[in-house]
Amino acid sequence: MDKSRFINLSQARVAIVGLGLMGGSLALALRAAKACREIIGVDVDEQTVAAALASGAIDRAEPFSPDLDCDMIVLATPVRAILSLLEELSHSRLPSPPSTTVLDLGSTKAQIVQAMGELPPRFEPIGGHPMCGREVSGFSQADVNLYRDRTFVLTPPGYSSVQALALVYELVEAVGAVPLVMSADRHDTLVAVVSHLPYAVAVALMRVALDNPDDGLWTLAASGFRDTSRLAASDVAMMTDILLTNRDAVLSALDSYRHEIDALAAAVESGDVAALRAAITDVQSKRADLFK
Amino acid sequence: MDKSRFINLSQARVAIVGLGLMGGSLALALRAAKACREIIGVDVDEQTVAAALASGAIDRAEPFSPDLDCDMIVLATPVRAILSLLEELSHSRLPSPPSTTVLDLGSTKAQIVQAMGELPPRFEPIGGHPMCGREVSGFSQADVNLYRDRTFVLTPPGYSSVQALALVYELVEAVGAVPLVMSADRHDTLVAVVSHLPYAVAVALMRVALDNPDDGLWTLAASGFRDTSRLAASDVAMMTDILLTNRDAVLSALDSYRHEIDALAAAVESGDVAALRAAITDVQSKRADLFK
Repeated sequence: MDKSRFINLSQARVAIVGLGLMGGSLALALRAAKACREIIGVDVDEQTVAAALASGAIDRAEPFSPDLDCDMIVLATPVRAILSLLEELSHSRLPSPPSTTVLDLGSTKAQIVQAMGELPPRFEPIGGHPMCGREVSGFSQADVNLYRDRTFVLTPPGYSSVQALALVYELVEAVGAVPLVMSADRHDTLVAVVSHLPYAVAVALMRVALDNPDDGLWTLAASGFRDTSRLAASDVAMMTDILLTNRDAVLSALDSYRHEIDALAAAVESGDVAALRAAITDVQSKRADLFK
Repeated sequence: MDKSRFINLSQARVAIVGLGLMGGSLALALRAAKACREIIGVDVDEQTVAAALASGAIDRAEPFSPDLDCDMIVLATPVRAILSLLEELSHSRLPSPPSTTVLDLGSTKAQIVQAMGELPPRFEPIGGHPMCGREVSGFSQADVNLYRDRTFVLTPPGYSSVQALALVYELVEAVGAVPLVMSADRHDTLVAVVSHLPYAVAVALMRVALDNPDDGLWTLAASGFRDTSRLAASDVAMMTDILLTNRDAVLSALDSYRHEIDALAAAVESGDVAALRAAITDVQSKRADLFK
């Protein structure tokens, strides 16, 4: 084992590619924790780079290059952009050692972890997904506490090195998140239900409301409508990529969901009080016990 | 016109039937505003009555009777209990004048306003629905500020007297709510979309999640799932009554909703990026502008 590859986060130069809500918040949190040697910001948007520099979230800005000179690259863009960036990294001509750990923050993991398998040995990839999405986006919304106490899923490929995983663990803990290792496939199946389905549910609800020509609707819409539809405000590019790169699991969740909507409609249509109560009672007690 | 029938809220003895979240909060808010002469509490649950008396929310407790001696009765139970109470009131043997204003707080209005038409002339009924539901229930959850700044829909039958409506307006404004008059049918069509559909949406989402055998689901469920599923914790008796007494409008909303879910599933299945973006972009900008 090459001991020169051991590096701690405090010595690491970390490049964050994509300085939106997730990447920007990561930079702010690493900076606040004085967690690493240098934070290099990479973003195609000049205003974003200027704002990140002005806020002190990053030490310096660089354009993206497969030959970025740093110890860790964090890919913090929407999923399909991450896939493109991994493709670019695969053309890196730098020798190794030293190696560079690559962590991504994409919301779906199977396609990304598969693409990570094509990287040259110089890169040590680990898939990641911090469970702290918001329906707002952009560096202006970045929050130093975004990751605090949130589950941070890690999906390391089987060939990951213990050094890379240890460095990523350090980063996760430095921003106050809680690491949780699982397979990319399991992750994608679970988030289809707890994250992508709720998004689709919210979009469909908004579409029904927008189709109603009576403006009184918006006067009567209270906290129930507000919360149930909230995710429909999520970033379009991010959600398009998520739905398309987790297609099978999303379609399966939507199919189960449609059956539940049909069952509820049938219970209402029948006017069967006992059946309707039974359909909602179990769910009521379970939901009341969650998120206490 | 019989001038003796004019009474202001400050002179009125108000009986609140049902001291749960809505009735209990109403009592607390009327008490805090020193809005009426006396608050009489009516509830079948002895512990609730004891708690309401102990908190000072009500001056005294009475059992329900169609001959309750008071100036205003507020029916604050689930919808089907309101229908039963209106049936009981129709057997009142007290003469008039003086008359008693009857306001209900039921979540659906058409069946209630129809039943109000059977009341003897002693009663002056006005349908009401304050848009401030929560997913918690019971007097222990009552909140003096529940009604503050919320829309309070009033659906007065065509034969309502101006006196009764004026008294109800006074009550609505005393608790800080904003009165909005509309027909019972329009109300029911609108709340089917902004309130009852979101509830069904949340219940179906919870059922899909509960059917998944992987416990990792609950570790990954974050604020998106929490908010989208929140309404599934709503009181079962209240929601059963709502769905059954607003059956046609709810079924129509569910039918529109199913079409939207199908359209989203088709866009995901096709893998057509442009179609998917188009389906969610309009909704995204509209939702981001709401509830600012």
